[in-house]
Amino acid sequence: MAFELTPADLPDLVRGAALLGTGGGGDPAIGRTLVAHAMRTGHPVMIIDPAELDDDALVVPTALMGAPSVLVERLPRGTEPVTALRALEKVLGRRADATMPIESGGINSTIPLFVAAQLGIPVVDADGMGRAFPELQMETFAIYGVNGSPLSIADQNGYTAIIDTRSDNRAMEQFARSVTIRMGGVGYIAEYPMSGADVKRTAIPRTLSLALRLGRTIRQAREQHRDPIEALKETLADTLYEYGEVVFTGKVTDVDRRTVDAFTRGTARIEAFEGSASCEIAFQNEYLTAKVDGKLMTTVPDLITILQQDSAEPITAETLRYGQRVCVFAIGTPQIMRTAQALAVFGPAAFGLDTDFIPVQQLLAGSQT
Amino acid sequence: MAFELTPADLPDLVRGAALLGTGGGGDPAIGRTLVAHAMRTGHPVMIIDPAELDDDALVVPTALMGAPSVLVERLPRGTEPVTALRALEKVLGRRADATMPIESGGINSTIPLFVAAQLGIPVVDADGMGRAFPELQMETFAIYGVNGSPLSIADQNGYTAIIDTRSDNRAMEQFARSVTIRMGGVGYIAEYPMSGADVKRTAIPRTLSLALRLGRTIRQAREQHRDPIEALKETLADTLYEYGEVVFTGKVTDVDRRTVDAFTRGTARIEAFEGSASCEIAFQNEYLTAKVDGKLMTTVPDLITILQQDSAEPITAETLRYGQRVCVFAIGTPQIMRTAQALAVFGPAAFGLDTDFIPVQQLLAGSQT
Repeated sequence: MAFELTPADLPDLVRGAALLGTGGGGDPAIGRTLVAHAMRTGHPVMIIDPAELDDDALVVPTALMGAPSVLVERLPRGTEPVTALRALEKVLGRRADATMPIESGGINSTIPLFVAAQLGIPVVDADGMGRAFPELQMETFAIYGVNGSPLSIADQNGYTAIIDTRSDNRAMEQFARSVTIRMGGVGYIAEYPMSGADVKRTAIPRTLSLALRLGRTIRQAREQHRDPIEALKETLADTLYEYGEVVFTGKVTDVDRRTVDAFTRGTARIEAFEGSASCEIAFQNEYLTAKVDGKLMTTVPDLITILQQDSAEPITAETLRYGQRVCVFAIGTPQIMRTAQALAVFGPAAFGLDTDFIPVQQLLAGSQT
Repeated sequence: MAFELTPADLPDLVRGAALLGTGGGGDPAIGRTLVAHAMRTGHPVMIIDPAELDDDALVVPTALMGAPSVLVERLPRGTEPVTALRALEKVLGRRADATMPIESGGINSTIPLFVAAQLGIPVVDADGMGRAFPELQMETFAIYGVNGSPLSIADQNGYTAIIDTRSDNRAMEQFARSVTIRMGGVGYIAEYPMSGADVKRTAIPRTLSLALRLGRTIRQAREQHRDPIEALKETLADTLYEYGEVVFTGKVTDVDRRTVDAFTRGTARIEAFEGSASCEIAFQNEYLTAKVDGKLMTTVPDLITILQQDSAEPITAETLRYGQRVCVFAIGTPQIMRTAQALAVFGPAAFGLDTDFIPVQQLLAGSQT
């Protein structure tokens, strides 16, 4: 089930990852550019299934931390995530057997590929969010008992910090966030070091190959002049995510966006092409809720994506602009992300939202009666 | 030249350390309380002269980082600086042979004593500031080529961060400061790990025994009904500091104090008991400048102390209050702190002050012509 990822796969992979990024996860063009360069000059990138991991293998996820908006102005040097991983390996006294994404997103699905191309270690086809989230404690790893600590963070100067808050993953997030801000808004991290057995038990499996499939689905539908959104629904039905449905279609009429504490926060308004209906999307790096005429249609942790109406190209919260013609498309989350423990960490209340989690399948079924 | 510090020495030591702390360095009562308890239950505390160090000994200074005002409300648990030291030793792969203060001040002269009582290692009679300063790059260690990194920081939960910015001690300060703020305003640090040879080359020697002498001088003068300020001048003449002189005497009429980025900043005004003369003191944790009727009388890095007029008890910037009858007393700094390299790091410009450094001996001689 292992496969080699080729440079030709990258456009599909980052498109699908951006879709799973639900508005966050950074600019896929940056992720693609980084990895394409590393692939040309480095090792082949092997993607392995979680089932192929030895139970006692050491897997160390790698990622970017910070506000994607900063990254647009300051491209990484390239060595940062490797510096972070090496610093963590020194603390652990052991080299990583594989790396892995912590989330699905335009950039964070690619950082581990980038590390793999440089170091020749495989990337596990899984992650800890099954989408993107804004904070490091929001990981299925953490929810099911893996400590994020020790965490290593590196910047473009090669400066590092190792943070150890034991089982307090929220304090780890806060300490690392404060260092990220001092690093100029972005840092590169290696954290949640875990065994192969822990990966099998706690990770959302096969999200890299899912991103590749979803990105390919969109491209092939375009090539075949089929509706890419209908094609996405079909592909999703056959996955752990099970479900995808259109929430709203219209034109973006307002985006209120600001950077607060290295997060991109705000709301966007989309108005129907005809009639008076409108859809409001709240975001904190990622899209959190979709409401139509005030009625909740989808809420975190279910996925809200905003796609260009014709091409189904995902639009991030950073690039959402007045006048875009869009489709709001919701995707259900895997069951491992809907348990009581999971919802306590990344359900609506974790984002200060005054609503219970209701699965998108139910919300949209209700809206159609 | 080594000597055992006894609990009976503590009141004199912290009084003298608070004097050298120039308004910063924290509440000496807290430092005294902490160490007295550790001394009762722990090892004897041996103070050794820098000359007694093996050149290849490993010396690791320990200290508190943060706003002294926070500490008043949240006493340390006691284990924090030991946790920081142990975390750093793990990175270095070696146990410290001795610890040392990074600065002279009511609290930071005592943290290494506290560590020594717990671990049974000696404390080197020296430090890196010869007074207190607000930031970690402001160390003679750094100025003469010792890296502050790796730095270890621990909080009351036992959470740690290890920061490595190689030779960039300013970035180390910034990263550590940001973590300190997330730790609730105070953290306990171990940094500037160095050899015995480096201590001899870069530290201000014998500042612990100086603090003890200065504190004893004040107490004995009171007991003998002598003027303690005259007694201080005599004691200082015989040290590396060479010089002490009264700048102003009067009543505190205004204190403007605020906590910004975990620093205590502000200004204080003192008015003469008779006549219209007034003295303005600027501070950032420590007193930075003393001006009389707008004329500069003393500037950082020379030491400005504010003493109770009758008892010569040092008053910190935290406890300076309207109505106190005080004496502003200036002390010259050792030559190692007045070089061009030193002034570049902790001269007036480093605090945003628009003045060149002029030694207090010159400024006060000029004022008396």
